[in-house]
Amino acid sequence: MVKRNIVQLSARLTCECKTGFRVLFSNGASITCQQCPEANQGVTQDGYGCIQCPGSVSENGKCQCPKGSVLVERDGNGNLLNEARCEACSATEPSFSAPDTTGTRCVRCEDSFINSSQSCVCGTSNILAGGMCFSPNILPTAVASSVTYSQLLFSKRTACQALGNMCVMNMHSFSSITNDACGLYNTIYRATAAQGSSQDISYWRSNLPWLYYGEQSGLASRILQTEPLPVGFSFKGAQKNTNIELLAAVYSMRGDFLRWESVGGGNLQCVLSVSELLIGYPEPVFYDVFLVIQSAQETRRLLAVPLLNINQQFNGQFINQGSNMNNWYLTRRLMLVDTLSGREKSLSSTPRVIRVASNIKIGFKLVANTQKGQVYPPLMTVDFSDILITDPSTQTVTVSFSLEYTMDQIEARIKTDIALGVLGGVAVVHSLLKTASWKRRIASPLIDLQTILKFLLFYSGDLANVFFIITLGTGLYWLIFFKAQQFVSVLLPLAAQEERFVVYVGCAFALKTVQFLHKLFVQLSVDIFFVDWERPRGKASKHVEGSGEGKSQASPVSIWRTYFVANEWNEIQTIRKISPTFQVMAVLFFLEVVGFSSLALRDPSSNLLRSPDAYTPPYSLILRYGLASALWLSIGLIQMIFFTLFHERFIEDKIRQFVDLCSISNISVLLLSHRCFGYYIHGRSVHGHADTNMDEMNTNLKREADNLCGQRGLLPNSDTQTFQISITNRLRAQYDRILEPLSRRNGPSRLMDATANSCEQSTKAYHTMNRFLGSIIDHAHREMDYIVKDKLLFERLVGMEFIEPLDKSIFYNDDSHSFADVLFYGNEAVLLIFDTLFFCVVDLGSQNFILAAVLTYLQQLIFRLIRNGIGRRNLATKTLVDKRFLI
Amino acid sequence: MVKRNIVQLSARLTCECKTGFRVLFSNGASITCQQCPEANQGVTQDGYGCIQCPGSVSENGKCQCPKGSVLVERDGNGNLLNEARCEACSATEPSFSAPDTTGTRCVRCEDSFINSSQSCVCGTSNILAGGMCFSPNILPTAVASSVTYSQLLFSKRTACQALGNMCVMNMHSFSSITNDACGLYNTIYRATAAQGSSQDISYWRSNLPWLYYGEQSGLASRILQTEPLPVGFSFKGAQKNTNIELLAAVYSMRGDFLRWESVGGGNLQCVLSVSELLIGYPEPVFYDVFLVIQSAQETRRLLAVPLLNINQQFNGQFINQGSNMNNWYLTRRLMLVDTLSGREKSLSSTPRVIRVASNIKIGFKLVANTQKGQVYPPLMTVDFSDILITDPSTQTVTVSFSLEYTMDQIEARIKTDIALGVLGGVAVVHSLLKTASWKRRIASPLIDLQTILKFLLFYSGDLANVFFIITLGTGLYWLIFFKAQQFVSVLLPLAAQEERFVVYVGCAFALKTVQFLHKLFVQLSVDIFFVDWERPRGKASKHVEGSGEGKSQASPVSIWRTYFVANEWNEIQTIRKISPTFQVMAVLFFLEVVGFSSLALRDPSSNLLRSPDAYTPPYSLILRYGLASALWLSIGLIQMIFFTLFHERFIEDKIRQFVDLCSISNISVLLLSHRCFGYYIHGRSVHGHADTNMDEMNTNLKREADNLCGQRGLLPNSDTQTFQISITNRLRAQYDRILEPLSRRNGPSRLMDATANSCEQSTKAYHTMNRFLGSIIDHAHREMDYIVKDKLLFERLVGMEFIEPLDKSIFYNDDSHSFADVLFYGNEAVLLIFDTLFFCVVDLGSQNFILAAVLTYLQQLIFRLIRNGIGRRNLATKTLVDKRFLI
Repeated sequence: MVKRNIVQLSARLTCECKTGFRVLFSNGASITCQQCPEANQGVTQDGYGCIQCPGSVSENGKCQCPKGSVLVERDGNGNLLNEARCEACSATEPSFSAPDTTGTRCVRCEDSFINSSQSCVCGTSNILAGGMCFSPNILPTAVASSVTYSQLLFSKRTACQALGNMCVMNMHSFSSITNDACGLYNTIYRATAAQGSSQDISYWRSNLPWLYYGEQSGLASRILQTEPLPVGFSFKGAQKNTNIELLAAVYSMRGDFLRWESVGGGNLQCVLSVSELLIGYPEPVFYDVFLVIQSAQETRRLLAVPLLNINQQFNGQFINQGSNMNNWYLTRRLMLVDTLSGREKSLSSTPRVIRVASNIKIGFKLVANTQKGQVYPPLMTVDFSDILITDPSTQTVTVSFSLEYTMDQIEARIKTDIALGVLGGVAVVHSLLKTASWKRRIASPLIDLQTILKFLLFYSGDLANVFFIITLGTGLYWLIFFKAQQFVSVLLPLAAQEERFVVYVGCAFALKTVQFLHKLFVQLSVDIFFVDWERPRGKASKHVEGSGEGKSQASPVSIWRTYFVANEWNEIQTIRKISPTFQVMAVLFFLEVVGFSSLALRDPSSNLLRSPDAYTPPYSLILRYGLASALWLSIGLIQMIFFTLFHERFIEDKIRQFVDLCSISNISVLLLSHRCFGYYIHGRSVHGHADTNMDEMNTNLKREADNLCGQRGLLPNSDTQTFQISITNRLRAQYDRILEPLSRRNGPSRLMDATANSCEQSTKAYHTMNRFLGSIIDHAHREMDYIVKDKLLFERLVGMEFIEPLDKSIFYNDDSHSFADVLFYGNEAVLLIFDTLFFCVVDLGSQNFILAAVLTYLQQLIFRLIRNGIGRRNLATKTLVDKRFLI
Repeated sequence: MVKRNIVQLSARLTCECKTGFRVLFSNGASITCQQCPEANQGVTQDGYGCIQCPGSVSENGKCQCPKGSVLVERDGNGNLLNEARCEACSATEPSFSAPDTTGTRCVRCEDSFINSSQSCVCGTSNILAGGMCFSPNILPTAVASSVTYSQLLFSKRTACQALGNMCVMNMHSFSSITNDACGLYNTIYRATAAQGSSQDISYWRSNLPWLYYGEQSGLASRILQTEPLPVGFSFKGAQKNTNIELLAAVYSMRGDFLRWESVGGGNLQCVLSVSELLIGYPEPVFYDVFLVIQSAQETRRLLAVPLLNINQQFNGQFINQGSNMNNWYLTRRLMLVDTLSGREKSLSSTPRVIRVASNIKIGFKLVANTQKGQVYPPLMTVDFSDILITDPSTQTVTVSFSLEYTMDQIEARIKTDIALGVLGGVAVVHSLLKTASWKRRIASPLIDLQTILKFLLFYSGDLANVFFIITLGTGLYWLIFFKAQQFVSVLLPLAAQEERFVVYVGCAFALKTVQFLHKLFVQLSVDIFFVDWERPRGKASKHVEGSGEGKSQASPVSIWRTYFVANEWNEIQTIRKISPTFQVMAVLFFLEVVGFSSLALRDPSSNLLRSPDAYTPPYSLILRYGLASALWLSIGLIQMIFFTLFHERFIEDKIRQFVDLCSISNISVLLLSHRCFGYYIHGRSVHGHADTNMDEMNTNLKREADNLCGQRGLLPNSDTQTFQISITNRLRAQYDRILEPLSRRNGPSRLMDATANSCEQSTKAYHTMNRFLGSIIDHAHREMDYIVKDKLLFERLVGMEFIEPLDKSIFYNDDSHSFADVLFYGNEAVLLIFDTLFFCVVDLGSQNFILAAVLTYLQQLIFRLIRNGIGRRNLATKTLVDKRFLI
């Protein structure tokens, strides 16, 4: 067994003699034993001698005396007797003695014997229960005989404690009819009213454990919400006081007080194996939980924490499961694990069922509108699970212990509702205005189904903004007030209370998505045409096939400038005022690398970096949302400011570059976003020609740089190249008529051979349109003339034109390049909020900022590809430029 | 004091009578007390009676007897005596009795008294120490008199244990000269050799604690590295056995065995407050640590874990601090906190110094080349810190406990060195080849400083690849073998052993950066020219200023096609074979969202998702590197495959588009990456003209689609448009000569008026160059003619041309678009590896994948901006196209 330095595991390393042997010699490490020589000789209690026994020898080889007697082996001076004696203890007055626990001395017996029978023998008229002796009138005899927990009841004064514990194990449940443990407890409680209460607490009888608060209706709310605790909680500063110190008096099943134990702070969820439970908790222990109150001047005091046992029944009904506080029965004394009640037949058998307190929650409620962090007394809610034991070694139980801080959220909810109502109303008005503007721009006076649909689309966008503002405000409110407060004055909504908030965010996202898709659709179907002002400059000799001879024609105007402009337009379709990928990366950086994400934790600390070992509270959805959306918007705004004030001014402004390019290439752009509304970029070259070689191009550029030529504007001596245009119905009709052959060829009448024709038709339409639009701009059509004017300030604000273009089209000066409205560039707000909401919604669903960032990046990528791809096709269709040149 | 349900905190809720009062009545909750009537009356031990005392009354109001006597208050039957008696215990044979701990009975006294003096009185010749009685010849009297730890030594058999503990508190230190606690221990140890050893362990005497292994040199390595443990460790499968179960026998300062305690597994680092230490450890406790060995068939056995006390001294020297195992003195028995030795004057004073085991490490060493997970016996290393107590309430101590598994890494290191040598040699050869090729391409035969510099640059790239391959291989090796092994056969290098690896990665990154910057520089200074094949088609009437009359000239060839091509070239400069941002996002997704990052944890589990509550081991740098680089490369390869096989084939191939565009726009591109080497894209339109209107362009495109015209290739009836070219020195000289006036203007001679001239010079040079290159391609210069041929396979492999272009330039057919070598597109491998290394290096430095991703994104962004910005400027300079058209 023993090999080198490997020794057999044993709990003690001392030796003992066999039964019937006495120790002859011992030096601590080794002993010598010797058998007692004579029969009927026992080994002395100390194991070193042999002695003649007065009665029988017990199983352990030592002498034994009858009940009520003590075993005497030595005389008063410690000399060993030849024969041990059994002496009967004198049980009557004045000795009142009985054998002590070792059975070697007579000592004074327990008070209850003396009090009830004036002797150390419990008389036949009295009842001996649990090691204590009761007068018969104290206990209801009808019940006492049916109580068979005798094995548990062998201690003395603690019998009533044991009874109380049985009641606790029975989930504090009682009924007014039957007499179970709790009924018995209540009977005793009522019968001992005369004994007075302990610690001045009226529900706490001397000699009885405190199990119940009273039975009056509404008592719970009186206890829980009348008087705040004498100390306030504060999160920060010198008076920082957030420690909830809980202390529990621990009692054994038999009612013995075991110890004071401090109850773990913080939240704790764990999975326990059933086999460990069975080993660790052979018997239940019971906790009377107190809150330690330590104010500055006073000493530590204890406040009893009331218990709400969810499983408690009264007359067979679960009375504590409702939310109406007035029906609750508050109790005391908590049991964690009961592996005892479920044992069948013998106490040593494996229980068939165990009962575990699976969910313990201590809830603090903040006093409304407190500024000093006052809270009401806490309530401990406990939920038990019964577990059928099938396979202890693999079964597990999930147990959670949590502290919960709540405040009344009704006020906040009402405020939110009011804000929602007011802003919702404003949104309706705004959407109606937009719809009216839209009607004017498509020049349709009828209110039809399409109008209603458009209204709904506009409304969804506005309503999305309302929801976004409210959720952002709420998130920021909690973020700022919760994280910045010193004294506790607000507490985060609980997970359950966050549901409404999540629904609002969902609404905002869904509605914003509708708005975004609508914008996208509108952008992808915009009408656009590039007007080439270049006119042929000479004759080209062309070999006419068949004839063989050279024939002089106007030399062709090169299409490459149009290709170049179209190509550039194609490229600026999806540029934005921010870099979306940089946005994603920056947000991720601040959240996960700098550590802003820890601001969303459910604790009042505003530290960014936490020790990895420290306890990490769960995240609050509201804080996550507030943090993420605020961060996203801030970084977005910073980017926009950077791009607008620095990048576009000193590095590159793609929109202005495009306008310049139009001017240099002698090409104008007509954009029609609505039937009768759109934008015009005047690109007529100030040099008359742009389709020329490098020499002339360079000369032209230089002339312009030296201010040697006219200004680029549409009107003489003006610089304004970009306009919003309101065109007449007649002009639009003519525009459509020119394009009609092309749109027809996509229609159903495809009987004729299309391929050869279509190309011809297409170039024909291009030239017609080019000539037509050129002449319009040149005021060559008297019946389709236009005027140029400034937009009124109010018109700009409302985003609607007040004058209807009946006779003449109207060109509004527009130096702010608002043609970008048909590009991503002009809709940065919608895109930014959509991205923000997308990011937040993914995060709310997954609680993972990284996943949200990755998916937001993918979403941006996909929509950019869609916008580019379909936009390119639309551009090719509408401008008649071959798709192969849009690269 | 008592207010509503708030009660005063007290440890016990029972009442007691004052001194001198007896209990008259008690029912458990309330008691009635009565003063004892007469003087010299004491209260009985049970508190219920008054009794005449034989001697004096003690402070607690009860009777007192002299030493060696017991107090008798009741007779044998429990009747209370009128006057208590003091009975002397008979101390001699055969009674051997002495008062028990309560002082109420005579019981047999302790063995050591009987053994040494045949009585319960320790005779004057004997020595009474620590409650035990010793014969004088056992202890060296010279020392015994100077030991004043009497207060510690009042227990009985445990005195030798206490002595051992004192030796432990003295850091096991001893010297051969003085007689301190350890010296005394060793004296006793040698003296009691006859008593035999405990548990068959020769260093473990009965009755003495086991403190030392022997003193022979080399004993440590015999103990630690001779025989593996009888059980192997395996990480996975049915025989999973990784639990290190440590059990400690805990002894009190006085040497009492307190309990068996299991020692916490896992690593644990915490910061303890000194005040808590003082309260929690008023006296040191001592641990004998054992490893529990549980093999399948056998029962549990214990293996003593040797201790290496870093602070141990022998003759004043710290013998255990070196790394030479042969000098170590292994010991046993561990102390955690000693708050006792530092107390001055009295044992109740606050200690001035405390000693804390600040760093405990249990190290397991894997048997070399084991396949069954065999390990040598563990060694526990402990390091103590002495803390001077200044302000206990704010002072803290950092304490760590860790398990460490090591294996011999020498073999792996040798293998790595061999690989490094071999691959480094190959790299030299490869770099020499590249340098030779470069010399050929710049047509310079001299070996000058520049050549050596170039060689070093090439070599740095190749060496970077070598380091990258080795580190990637090492990382993957550990990742696969460590994570996949069932039986333990490899163990991760410790943090200290990873240093070499980190240096390799650093080398790889630094060298790769040099290569990357070199590539970038070369790309940014490439020579490029767009050859326009278009010739004027007619006469344009131009109004010559001043004369007023129209003058007929050749109508100018529009420059816009060149602008278009240049613009496109500008745009494809930074496109890559993968999407770099998607790459970053995908890697981040897999690492942090899918949870691959947990593969880099220092434990053998290969689970991706871990419970947040579970213990998280630290990260291994090697595993992080292996994981990140493998993942980055894999995703990069997948992206390349996707882009090559799907995207470029079915969606868009920017490179092919550019070649097509050249053809359509009638423009050829000449690229010279070296002085005499470059690329040529033949873009002569098959239609003769491209500078035309939309009709003709559409017709041309349609004709080509219908295969009605010739092929696009340079040679008749060939399709090959792209070539690698080796040009003659003469051609290059002519090329430079044409550009000379332009380069001169950037030079120092700026005296002449440049602005007006430069523009003219520029266009003149452009036209000259255009004509010159056009005539070269058209074979119009006999002395600068060229031939077209295929490259040899070997030439392709080596990347070097074998034929020197002496007489004629050589155009090599090149269908693989290798002109992309001067773009990012053609250098994907370098870029991908550079990104990989950048990501990994940031991660190694910060242990943060998110930060690495964000910084990698920024790095890509910055280098893209640099490449685009400077590339654009280079393009404008070399092609003479105005920068304003490169948008």
